[in-house]
Amino acid sequence: MQAKVKWVGGLQFVGESETGHAIVMDADTEVGGGNTGMRPTELLLVGLGGCSGMDVASILQKKREQVTGVEVNIKGEKADTHPKKFTDIEIEYIVSGKNISEEAVKKAIDLSMEKYCSVKATLEGVAKITYSYRIVRI
Amino acid sequence: MQAKVKWVGGLQFVGESETGHAIVMDADTEVGGGNTGMRPTELLLVGLGGCSGMDVASILQKKREQVTGVEVNIKGEKADTHPKKFTDIEIEYIVSGKNISEEAVKKAIDLSMEKYCSVKATLEGVAKITYSYRIVRI
Repeated sequence: MQAKVKWVGGLQFVGESETGHAIVMDADTEVGGGNTGMRPTELLLVGLGGCSGMDVASILQKKREQVTGVEVNIKGEKADTHPKKFTDIEIEYIVSGKNISEEAVKKAIDLSMEKYCSVKATLEGVAKITYSYRIVRI
Repeated sequence: MQAKVKWVGGLQFVGESETGHAIVMDADTEVGGGNTGMRPTELLLVGLGGCSGMDVASILQKKREQVTGVEVNIKGEKADTHPKKFTDIEIEYIVSGKNISEEAVKKAIDLSMEKYCSVKATLEGVAKITYSYRIVRI
């Protein structure tokens, strides 16, 4: 897997992936950036949510659960001193649907966290990752 | 730091960060995705390049080096078996400019890798991260 990033100006960078997509990254105005795009550290949290969210949506659909929504909230705590690595990451899943089985939701999340999610498996070497879920029955 | 991701349909998710930006993530068509956005795992590589690229551009500008370009190429190797975590990540920096000091470039990269880059410090618990640089004098 390959990617490249290019400096545009200020602290703005454009990242391009092998699959043909591009995103803008920028720093906070307080440190001289222009806030024209996500912080690189935010990409880790968004990537974690996306990776695990895809697992959960996919597993529940395979189980023929009538899922209408999957939202993932991710909170990251960083160390106070440089390099300010992530120390704790908390994930909350909110799964909506009709007659959703709680057991199926729990099992899908556990499978993602323990078996399938590459991002979680890469981040957990340094950060402690915890998770919880809520089911919204519609 | 907080972020949220929401399922759109298929395996497409939209991630939103606390700083007000959004990105689309999607899976490969081979696994049922639509390839409408980056893979979540690609975000880790792009985030690593952006994080360190910002450090390098910023440090070199503070040193009054006449930098005209900073590009960062990132290659990631993943394990073959689930959860397919990143095992090795290789970063190549290409710094362009006039009368650029190689020592300054080397120092800036070392400072980013060893001291400042949060993403590197978070990823290196699991993945082995190596780096090299090229200077293009214009």
